[in-house]
Amino acid sequence: MNVIPGLAISNRLRSTPFTQRVQQSGVKAFTVYNHMLLPTEFDTVELDYWHLCEHVQVWDVGVERQVEIKGPDACKLVQWMTPRDIRKVDVGRCVYVPLADESGCLINDPIALKLAEDHWWLSIADSDVLLWAKGLSTGAKLDVKISEPKVWPLAVQGPKADELMALVFDESVRDIRFFRFQPMAFKGHYFNVARSGWSKQGGYEIYVDDADVGVALYDALFDAGAYLNVRPGCPNLIERIESSLLSFGNDMTMEHTVLESGLDSFFDLNADVESLAGDALRAQKARGLDRKIMGLVVSAPHGAAPVHVDPNTGFVLGDQFEPIGRLGSQVWSPKYQHQVVTVMLEEPYLSDVQLSPHIQVQLTSGTLAWAQVLELPFDFQAAGLVESKPG
Amino acid sequence: MNVIPGLAISNRLRSTPFTQRVQQSGVKAFTVYNHMLLPTEFDTVELDYWHLCEHVQVWDVGVERQVEIKGPDACKLVQWMTPRDIRKVDVGRCVYVPLADESGCLINDPIALKLAEDHWWLSIADSDVLLWAKGLSTGAKLDVKISEPKVWPLAVQGPKADELMALVFDESVRDIRFFRFQPMAFKGHYFNVARSGWSKQGGYEIYVDDADVGVALYDALFDAGAYLNVRPGCPNLIERIESSLLSFGNDMTMEHTVLESGLDSFFDLNADVESLAGDALRAQKARGLDRKIMGLVVSAPHGAAPVHVDPNTGFVLGDQFEPIGRLGSQVWSPKYQHQVVTVMLEEPYLSDVQLSPHIQVQLTSGTLAWAQVLELPFDFQAAGLVESKPG
Repeated sequence: MNVIPGLAISNRLRSTPFTQRVQQSGVKAFTVYNHMLLPTEFDTVELDYWHLCEHVQVWDVGVERQVEIKGPDACKLVQWMTPRDIRKVDVGRCVYVPLADESGCLINDPIALKLAEDHWWLSIADSDVLLWAKGLSTGAKLDVKISEPKVWPLAVQGPKADELMALVFDESVRDIRFFRFQPMAFKGHYFNVARSGWSKQGGYEIYVDDADVGVALYDALFDAGAYLNVRPGCPNLIERIESSLLSFGNDMTMEHTVLESGLDSFFDLNADVESLAGDALRAQKARGLDRKIMGLVVSAPHGAAPVHVDPNTGFVLGDQFEPIGRLGSQVWSPKYQHQVVTVMLEEPYLSDVQLSPHIQVQLTSGTLAWAQVLELPFDFQAAGLVESKPG
Repeated sequence: MNVIPGLAISNRLRSTPFTQRVQQSGVKAFTVYNHMLLPTEFDTVELDYWHLCEHVQVWDVGVERQVEIKGPDACKLVQWMTPRDIRKVDVGRCVYVPLADESGCLINDPIALKLAEDHWWLSIADSDVLLWAKGLSTGAKLDVKISEPKVWPLAVQGPKADELMALVFDESVRDIRFFRFQPMAFKGHYFNVARSGWSKQGGYEIYVDDADVGVALYDALFDAGAYLNVRPGCPNLIERIESSLLSFGNDMTMEHTVLESGLDSFFDLNADVESLAGDALRAQKARGLDRKIMGLVVSAPHGAAPVHVDPNTGFVLGDQFEPIGRLGSQVWSPKYQHQVVTVMLEEPYLSDVQLSPHIQVQLTSGTLAWAQVLELPFDFQAAGLVESKPG
């Protein structure tokens, strides 16, 4: 991970109730996300990764702000914001909802939690969805209240997450199904607890709505989990790319449509819903795409130079220095022993993949490397890659 | 300034065309502002400050994103967004426009540039005004196009700014009046150049709309300005607080109204304009304020502990540990040899100031210090403070 020294702290970069704990436990770097501090690295990204894949971690993801939409027009507004059909979502469900404007371009890609028939939380990525929702509601005179409640999610992630959560809450937490949430008591306070989180290692997100009880919960997770080798952690760059979890702002931006970002695979674009983006997306689908997010698996050994990016355009370059598409994220995968990359692949390279999925790309060392172009999510087995064990 | 090690860089934290130059010149720290990198310190904040007050600096303020609003309903939309009357603003003028919602709470506080009768740029502080504008426009079916153009402002600030700009552009740049802008040619490319900037040391902002020519301009400013002792710089914490330049997100937030933030002093609240915030603000004015942003001048010598802030509430505490108001910004002023602070002073302390402007506040050392409470903007002379010269 590229870390530069010196992040200047001010009130504008908001802390969470857990920031002090995170700093005391020796965090190495932060990023800024929704005007808040998000830890990115504790030991090294690779050591954090192996630990996450084997044990359990507690993540301060208070940066996942909730945009609360409440009132008679709540469902109407949420449906405007996303092309995914949300009409039949039950209370107690989480649903991944790419948000998009009239041109089909992304605004954000939150998890929506349906708290009641007229009450939603959008647990957002990094953009001020609150302002978009307020603008739409004011402009169209909708009957909803929109706010950012004092909620700071805490994630418990990793293969031992169930065991830890059962100790701190109770055994019934194991029964929460994927992308469902329910209130769970800790010291008499009920938190919404969801089976979700930004890794594929399993786990929960706890929607902490009381800072004091939240900090007590944080400490209880570490006390109870000592024998499970619990550690503080954070969304891990290696794990999330290996798991094909896309990051809004990195892999795709407001300049990219839902289709170009490959997010239409999560829903039926032809559902007859009142969504701002519906017409534009169906038209783009009929026209065909000029670019689409794809994966690259680059044959570069551990320690080799990463993929070169044109500093002016942000594009990956081919063997003739031709720009083939904007780089999203890249990381060296210890599990698959390759550089794993996302790229918004442009035409004609996108069509060429049908002929041959093998291309050459420039590395920062000035040499070329072979890359296999894959659809997302990555299917490493199908690509002929064998899984390595921790070194 | 509070700087912590380790800012993790990713695509999501966008660079400007000048970031590479800024890094090469030894920047010490960045902050993140509008999802972009903003330098905050080069030498030390205090050395940067004295240099700014005596010479000339070039600032990469590409984070000042432009929200472009263009079309027949452009003026209507801008007027909705701000309680300031913008009907008589001439083309070529800059105007400071606090943006506020129906409750009178701030959304942002940009400089608006009127480019044509149907064409505005809002040069924004740190929040996604683009999304609010898009939401309002979509919701109310306005006839405008809203976008974020590829524009990265570059500021030239300091007492020698006129001389440097005259060398790089031409002598006519000296004739640009305060808060006016006009196209100025550099190498045949016309940039909008305004007499404005986030310091009180004088200077310009150049709205760079071409990355390549912009970098050539950046280099030309340093080449031409060598004999003027030009240096890279950035908005300076000391200078901006001494100059009472408030920072959205620091001194006031989305939880504070235009009145509480003292920003109604810039315009007539009773202008008969179609602004979303008008009614709420006039009602609050009639009711009276429960809190208001004020200045504190704290008697604490150089190197003394700063004002203590309750970690849970963000509040400054009085002599009995009573919370008196949320801290905005604080810095030690080398010019006035006091700690200079902004605070959102709450009742009853706000009214008490009429009786006596002297209060005691807790320092992080656990001791108390006397503070003089002042209206903003700071009038240091009236407060009996004498100006020191550079040490």
